[in-house]
Amino acid sequence: MSGKLKTAVLGASGYSGLALTRILDRHPRLEAPVLLSREDGDDRPQDLADIFPELSGNGGYPLRPLSWRELKRQGVQLLFLATPEETSRSLVPEAISQGLRVIDLSGAWRLKQARHAAIYSFQDADSVTAAELTDMAIYGLPELNGACIAAAQLVANPGCYATSVILALAPLLKAGLIDREHGIISDSKSGVSGAGKVPTSRTHFVAVADNLSVYSVFNHRHLGEIVEQLDLSESGLTFTPHLLPIPRGILSTIYVRLNQPMSAEQVESCLREFYLGKRWVRIFATPRLPQLQFSLHTNFCDLGFCLAKDGRRLVLVSCVDNLLKGAAGQAVQNMNLMCGWGEQEGLQ
Amino acid sequence: MSGKLKTAVLGASGYSGLALTRILDRHPRLEAPVLLSREDGDDRPQDLADIFPELSGNGGYPLRPLSWRELKRQGVQLLFLATPEETSRSLVPEAISQGLRVIDLSGAWRLKQARHAAIYSFQDADSVTAAELTDMAIYGLPELNGACIAAAQLVANPGCYATSVILALAPLLKAGLIDREHGIISDSKSGVSGAGKVPTSRTHFVAVADNLSVYSVFNHRHLGEIVEQLDLSESGLTFTPHLLPIPRGILSTIYVRLNQPMSAEQVESCLREFYLGKRWVRIFATPRLPQLQFSLHTNFCDLGFCLAKDGRRLVLVSCVDNLLKGAAGQAVQNMNLMCGWGEQEGLQ
Amino acid sequence: MSGKLKTAVLGASGYSGLALTRILDRHPRLEAPVLLSREDGDDRPQDLADIFPELSGNGGYPLRPLSWRELKRQGVQLLFLATPEETSRSLVPEAISQGLRVIDLSGAWRLKQARHAAIYSFQDADSVTAAELTDMAIYGLPELNGACIAAAQLVANPGCYATSVILALAPLLKAGLIDREHGIISDSKSGVSGAGKVPTSRTHFVAVADNLSVYSVFNHRHLGEIVEQLDLSESGLTFTPHLLPIPRGILSTIYVRLNQPMSAEQVESCLREFYLGKRWVRIFATPRLPQLQFSLHTNFCDLGFCLAKDGRRLVLVSCVDNLLKGAAGQAVQNMNLMCGWGEQEGLQ
Amino acid sequence: MSGKLKTAVLGASGYSGLALTRILDRHPRLEAPVLLSREDGDDRPQDLADIFPELSGNGGYPLRPLSWRELKRQGVQLLFLATPEETSRSLVPEAISQGLRVIDLSGAWRLKQARHAAIYSFQDADSVTAAELTDMAIYGLPELNGACIAAAQLVANPGCYATSVILALAPLLKAGLIDREHGIISDSKSGVSGAGKVPTSRTHFVAVADNLSVYSVFNHRHLGEIVEQLDLSESGLTFTPHLLPIPRGILSTIYVRLNQPMSAEQVESCLREFYLGKRWVRIFATPRLPQLQFSLHTNFCDLGFCLAKDGRRLVLVSCVDNLLKGAAGQAVQNMNLMCGWGEQEGLQ
Repeated sequence: MSGKLKTAVLGASGYSGLALTRILDRHPRLEAPVLLSREDGDDRPQDLADIFPELSGNGGYPLRPLSWRELKRQGVQLLFLATPEETSRSLVPEAISQGLRVIDLSGAWRLKQARHAAIYSFQDADSVTAAELTDMAIYGLPELNGACIAAAQLVANPGCYATSVILALAPLLKAGLIDREHGIISDSKSGVSGAGKVPTSRTHFVAVADNLSVYSVFNHRHLGEIVEQLDLSESGLTFTPHLLPIPRGILSTIYVRLNQPMSAEQVESCLREFYLGKRWVRIFATPRLPQLQFSLHTNFCDLGFCLAKDGRRLVLVSCVDNLLKGAAGQAVQNMNLMCGWGEQEGLQ
Repeated sequence: MSGKLKTAVLGASGYSGLALTRILDRHPRLEAPVLLSREDGDDRPQDLADIFPELSGNGGYPLRPLSWRELKRQGVQLLFLATPEETSRSLVPEAISQGLRVIDLSGAWRLKQARHAAIYSFQDADSVTAAELTDMAIYGLPELNGACIAAAQLVANPGCYATSVILALAPLLKAGLIDREHGIISDSKSGVSGAGKVPTSRTHFVAVADNLSVYSVFNHRHLGEIVEQLDLSESGLTFTPHLLPIPRGILSTIYVRLNQPMSAEQVESCLREFYLGKRWVRIFATPRLPQLQFSLHTNFCDLGFCLAKDGRRLVLVSCVDNLLKGAAGQAVQNMNLMCGWGEQEGLQ
Repeated sequence: MSGKLKTAVLGASGYSGLALTRILDRHPRLEAPVLLSREDGDDRPQDLADIFPELSGNGGYPLRPLSWRELKRQGVQLLFLATPEETSRSLVPEAISQGLRVIDLSGAWRLKQARHAAIYSFQDADSVTAAELTDMAIYGLPELNGACIAAAQLVANPGCYATSVILALAPLLKAGLIDREHGIISDSKSGVSGAGKVPTSRTHFVAVADNLSVYSVFNHRHLGEIVEQLDLSESGLTFTPHLLPIPRGILSTIYVRLNQPMSAEQVESCLREFYLGKRWVRIFATPRLPQLQFSLHTNFCDLGFCLAKDGRRLVLVSCVDNLLKGAAGQAVQNMNLMCGWGEQEGLQ
Repeated sequence: MSGKLKTAVLGASGYSGLALTRILDRHPRLEAPVLLSREDGDDRPQDLADIFPELSGNGGYPLRPLSWRELKRQGVQLLFLATPEETSRSLVPEAISQGLRVIDLSGAWRLKQARHAAIYSFQDADSVTAAELTDMAIYGLPELNGACIAAAQLVANPGCYATSVILALAPLLKAGLIDREHGIISDSKSGVSGAGKVPTSRTHFVAVADNLSVYSVFNHRHLGEIVEQLDLSESGLTFTPHLLPIPRGILSTIYVRLNQPMSAEQVESCLREFYLGKRWVRIFATPRLPQLQFSLHTNFCDLGFCLAKDGRRLVLVSCVDNLLKGAAGQAVQNMNLMCGWGEQEGLQ
């Protein structure tokens, strides 16, 4: 026995799953993760390096079919799901009943029941189990919900856009400094890996390169989790996603009106105090601003701002790597909390 | 005599100047433009194709030193300036006194006197001539100021960002449909050619690629011309420029609150009526939205929008090619108006 | 009657077809082309601008189902095929029998019978008609086969890579200056539009951006047409395609050994004499070299070279826009020849 | 005392220096490196995070003026130079006389004396010290010169292009399998960080994006070190660098003729045996080929190949991250050897 934790990952063949596997593989507190494949035929990939040749040369990444019995036999205690929502929705009840702790990177359990019905259309919508799991699930944003995450059995890892927006707004909103009536705007821009690995006409290189496009205005799924976490009304936030011609990274430019004139120092203090001791949030002192590039390949959420001379109009800038702080890195940060380890373990 | 107009271009060695030269060279109403260089030494480039090899094979593009006498001898009637503001500022008085009509692509004459002083610091700030020219200059946005442009001797060609923002907002603002008190936000994103051809650490490929950055929040120079043209207060518009990792193109995402709930049909009608018969503005019917790519290498300004269910929150999307509708194409459109030709001449 | 030629395009919904439609639409000798769709259902796109919104605002581009009777009724004389090879293969016999002249942008008719069998596997491989059409088809490289093209009923428009390689090598090979025994190498790099518009894992933005990859070494289909046109043995040319992280453009770096030492002046003379009077080939004088960017959005093939001090090792650099000189532009150049017009008509 | 090695870096403000600093900072055998600046004024940057904001949040990276006395006082034993050649040339004699071991990332000491004179023009060309140091310097390619590196006092870290080419060719050349008379061609493509951080017209985003260009044919400086290390004649290798529109990474496509027909298995065996036990070279089994992306952000050199049916024409594909295996990673690999540590330490 190594004294190390045994984990498993289902969905390592996606972008987030790959990023997650890479981190888990080097994490000092873990044994090599068990990689699970939902495919079961003879021609399924046998090793993750068959799908991602960049993984070769580091030893093997064998892919195994999912079997609850086998997970138990191997002593797996924590299961990561980097799967589509429907899959998470159908697998989590059994995983929980098997006594596994689960960190789900999909949107399956992020929202409370009522809002869920409006946004997602799951077949299990009316089941008692689903309702119970929805109640039990903890929204896995460590900087806000650390204590609950530590004790959670089911963690719903936040969406990438949501992470960038919530972390930017939480300090000022919770301090009551933002004029909620006036409305908040988040103009958010994401790299293409956020759209997933399945090839579509939207992700074709020629459609993305030398381009910028707006999509899902007023109806992106992440809007639901943002307003729920920040206790906003749906009409209180205008959220506009854009597709950037880059592989990864998110930058959100967020516009708020302050309730009363503030100085830049006061705004900065509010942010700094809120994130005091938080390893993975960096505050940029005005007039410096984070750039999307700065947080790439890191687990940082970078925050900066500009305040108008009137002291009321505030522009917040928030950057995350959508595959790390926006997905896999945050999942590991959640695991660290659930296991009582330092939040930075395995993420540096 | 060909019956064709004779023009000259100073500043063809910049990105806008090159784009302008290409259009003028193929314009059916023009003789080949006289290309002027401010350099005068023996080692100055003799031909624009020495600077831009992509021009070779189409006949020559000889560069000549600027000489007012020589311009007169050749019968030049219209001078384009694609030069830094200071240069335009110092040359225009003489050009006008020589009887030339001038289309200036710089920011030198776009603003009325008072605002100018706050934004630009020209040496001639107090001169009578400068004041007179400032009064005389027409802001060259053909869709708004067509009649004045037709008769103008000095046209101040709009900024690229300003073009995208003004054309999106003008219909609804002039119809009194936008809540000015609430404030307007333009989150604008531009390709790198907008930053000019001089190499800097900001335009280094490694600094731009795989990145997105925010700059000049609350104090970009184009803010002045936008609020002046739209009769907004400075605090009535929050304008946030971003640098995109693409060579050219602008997309502005603009957020307004309507005075009263409207339907998407009403918004679309307002836009369509305002631009009825305007060749170079395209309206996209909701739910379609323009993408930055669509207007590249064209003189179109593409407009689209999304309206929230509440009928009040409106997101406008506006795209232009910063080198064409945002600079050289618009300059030619202005020339067409000044000469009584169709606005589309030479631009298709 | 306009006295203008009536043409039709099948396959305008692909990248080459779109580029072709744009050129034909502005060509001074043509009526607006008839755009044909192979789809026939009620939900087929009715207008090309439904597929490519960037086309809107220029009048309509109606798409019609293919009907030979209708083509005849409308007086169409020339048919462009921008279709997959199999489609061209099945349609051309009828088109020819209907008396149409055909310019086929696919690989269906580029190779003589024997080589075809080895590279393509068409169902009609043994038919008499296919054999006759193969004999009749003219390889549509205007700089080499101008006279034959002028009289052709069926033109097989060259592949994009093939155009870049053949035009670079033809002058020196035909002058007997290249050591054929030594072998020729073409290291060719192409933008992604060359891979077509169908989304695949290879054309996903994340797979292409920040990457360069080699593919189809020793067995790319264009190898066949290059060696056939240049009368090389298959082992006499090593042809290595690469996928570049850009939307369009090809640069081929070609390595040959000269039979005897030459000077740079002699090499340049050989190229210049061969292409004397050819509008669409530009020769760069050493030490200047073409860059991929220079020929983008033009119909030029740009050629340059470096000669080693030993006078024997020669590196040729050849650039084309794969959608223009490598496809649609060249098709129009062929049409111009077939109709007795200047080669530059509609292409400037 | 920590028992850890104390190192210093001069030139951390360049791309290679930054990459080096990041690795050293996390290396388990090292104390935090001393970062030296050649600037000395009051306004010099005080911390590397002032230059690279992406470094903030990890503790400080103080920059100190170079002082030999201070280095000694702090117990620095190993000095990395990520400086221009001239700087390395002028500082190394003193560093060596101070008893420091030196790993120099520049080209200052890579070539033996005679070849140096032809390629670099150093002021110290005739000095005795320079001659002695040239003799003493070990070319730091660990897979080839491991034993010498272990004992070296001065290591000349190879060029990025050179690393990709030498590692691909060494196995077959040293086994005598390549026809040297026939000549070898390396068509190499590099991302822009290889051109350094100083902004120039060549590295301007607009000049690089959507482009590919060839440069320094027959006379790139890395040609010298490649032929010297592989014992080739200068005319035996044609080396053609290209500038890719990506920030980092190199892919070399290398063409050789084998002395006699071989099978793919034989070629693969030759490569595998040569690199047996070498942690940082990965061999791809045909028909798989490495892509540039696979080695990004790793210290791997990825090698693959295609063999023609004739068994003689061989295409090798070699990829490295120019900032890691092509610079900083390799420097750390050299340090590991010099200190008797595992080659993978700090590089995973």
